[in-house]
Amino acid sequence: MRLTSSYYADVHAALREALDEQGLDGFLATAPSDVAYLAGFFYAVTERPVYLWFPRQGRPVCLVPQLDDEYARLQRIEADIATYAEYPGVDPAEKVLARLIGERGGPAARIGVSGGLTLGAHRLLSAALPRAEFVTSAVVAGLRITKHPEEIARHREAAAICDEMIAAGRALIEDALHSGGPLPSEGDLAKHVIGYGTDAMYQRYDHVIYTTKLAGGLVYAGPNSAHPHGLPSRRRLEPGDTVILSLGAAVGSRFVESERTFVIGEPTDEQRRYFATAARAQEVGTLGLRAGRSCAEVNRECLDVIRQDGFGAYIRHRQGHGIGVQNHEPPWVEDGDDTVIRPGMVLSSEPGVYVPGHGGYRISDTVLVTEQGPERLTRYPRALEENVIA
Amino acid sequence: MRLTSSYYADVHAALREALDEQGLDGFLATAPSDVAYLAGFFYAVTERPVYLWFPRQGRPVCLVPQLDDEYARLQRIEADIATYAEYPGVDPAEKVLARLIGERGGPAARIGVSGGLTLGAHRLLSAALPRAEFVTSAVVAGLRITKHPEEIARHREAAAICDEMIAAGRALIEDALHSGGPLPSEGDLAKHVIGYGTDAMYQRYDHVIYTTKLAGGLVYAGPNSAHPHGLPSRRRLEPGDTVILSLGAAVGSRFVESERTFVIGEPTDEQRRYFATAARAQEVGTLGLRAGRSCAEVNRECLDVIRQDGFGAYIRHRQGHGIGVQNHEPPWVEDGDDTVIRPGMVLSSEPGVYVPGHGGYRISDTVLVTEQGPERLTRYPRALEENVIA
Repeated sequence: MRLTSSYYADVHAALREALDEQGLDGFLATAPSDVAYLAGFFYAVTERPVYLWFPRQGRPVCLVPQLDDEYARLQRIEADIATYAEYPGVDPAEKVLARLIGERGGPAARIGVSGGLTLGAHRLLSAALPRAEFVTSAVVAGLRITKHPEEIARHREAAAICDEMIAAGRALIEDALHSGGPLPSEGDLAKHVIGYGTDAMYQRYDHVIYTTKLAGGLVYAGPNSAHPHGLPSRRRLEPGDTVILSLGAAVGSRFVESERTFVIGEPTDEQRRYFATAARAQEVGTLGLRAGRSCAEVNRECLDVIRQDGFGAYIRHRQGHGIGVQNHEPPWVEDGDDTVIRPGMVLSSEPGVYVPGHGGYRISDTVLVTEQGPERLTRYPRALEENVIA
Repeated sequence: MRLTSSYYADVHAALREALDEQGLDGFLATAPSDVAYLAGFFYAVTERPVYLWFPRQGRPVCLVPQLDDEYARLQRIEADIATYAEYPGVDPAEKVLARLIGERGGPAARIGVSGGLTLGAHRLLSAALPRAEFVTSAVVAGLRITKHPEEIARHREAAAICDEMIAAGRALIEDALHSGGPLPSEGDLAKHVIGYGTDAMYQRYDHVIYTTKLAGGLVYAGPNSAHPHGLPSRRRLEPGDTVILSLGAAVGSRFVESERTFVIGEPTDEQRRYFATAARAQEVGTLGLRAGRSCAEVNRECLDVIRQDGFGAYIRHRQGHGIGVQNHEPPWVEDGDDTVIRPGMVLSSEPGVYVPGHGGYRISDTVLVTEQGPERLTRYPRALEENVIA
């Protein structure tokens, strides 16, 4: 799953250029996703900080807790490696970092940090580096917003696995129906599809790494499916249920999501109506993801389909969001984000219709924006007639 | 898994008293673990903020994204519920929050926040509430450091499940050995034990909720076990391997961890030596977790066992840490933490010996500090003779 040194060289060159433009002496990455993106270090996130110091000139250096030293070397990360003993520590990470930056020379007066830095860490860093000014900067977020060809290749691989996870979930329900046994619970289904995805990763890749997870998913059926972010419950599926499989997978921590709505047995008129609206909104929204348009504009057109069908009261969320090293990241396909869509962006398209007490309807694809238009990376069939489980 | 309203009433009363003492008009909880602790709301964490405003007087109110509205009601959270539309939003969460605080009246000039608040959120909140001063305060962390009897009951239940997960992992290896088939890979073992724990949760509890996970684990064998935080790999276990099962489980999001070291087949003298040191350090460290002693002092005594055996170069981390709504939380059983141990604390005790290229040795228990001394909540056998898999 490792990205090549050539990928990192490209990213580093782009970051140096952006630092120059913003008049920053370097960037101090503190978010696990930024560290993964810039240096290819993937680690179990705890209270022990990892600091990646990326100076405008010279080699980046990654300060890791001692317990991750050999693990970072094993991953052949694209930075020098330094360690501190422990957290909170008699000689805390921030003091070690300050000495490290000092020893390496080079200016460090204006240091870029992400807005995700915590007040607590900011205070410790300011005390350890009293002459530095920490400037919140979207310099790395700006790079991450469009994807490198090597990243896109990983997104494609993840999309294939995610579609297979959907198929595995459907098969579990279908097999239970055909055998006449009890249907699986939401929890059973979630375990099955996540297990499928995890197994696939281990089978296909020598070296498995991730920031948060290899494969994950929410599974809800019947009335529970009206809660867009509810956790899978012990409720068993029943004939007549609307079922949402809302699944994600990441190869080299490059995420995708694929979500499909199924109906168990012959759909009612009510189910057909809601499904048709959700599917049409998703189609309109997906086709709208073209270079030059704004996220807010596409989102409005997409959700207008639901409003015009009279189901505006059943909207619970925006059309979608960017996907990359994190499963949710900028830009946001939402009214409040005027970002102009560009080739190389990878975006989810997932409007939903949620009817309290009845159920929810959501189809999500992961979409690559190309010069030629939107390309759906996830390809599992979307139409109702293909997703009736009987 | 839901804690009772009486538990929340106790916590709320304690928080009000602490706010009084610190001269704060209220606390604005932004960390998912604080929101879970104070209001019993468990949700999928995304970029969409959840703000729990807990005034010194009056009812707390939880501001959630619209998509979690019904889900929060379903959980019968211990706060009023208000919603904002979306992230980033035309009317962002912070502006909605400012109006909400205004409408509810009551002073809101000095607002406590945790050090985990991000610079980005702090800037938005300061702009939306220009007359408020946001004061980082450990007021909620201070409450969380000792556990309520209802929480301890959940920790006990989680400990029983975690021990069963260890047994399930051992059985998988044992069954493979006895059947003469290939041994499982680290990834297989991880999937098996996490699946066991997740199934147990769904079987035992009507309503399953969590902040980060129900059950999780790291599994490493042979040379990989020398990386304390390495992710499970596809490497198959082999006769002669040292194997660490480092597992966690949470009931009502009250975490425990249980970790055991196994040897496949007759241990070598080298394995016996490292195991004996790790086991003795753990015994000394665990017995040291007594009210009145300092975390730093106990940690030093514990790790001294390893140093005195001549294996100081193989230490990679502290003795342990607090466990509660998060799997790692204060206090830290480490040289840099002088916190005095008190009854009601729940702490991990998990010193380790890590020999590069050879393997690692770690035993971890979750320990409740009582007036009478330390009580191990996790009880799976620890001794080498009991953990040889043959």
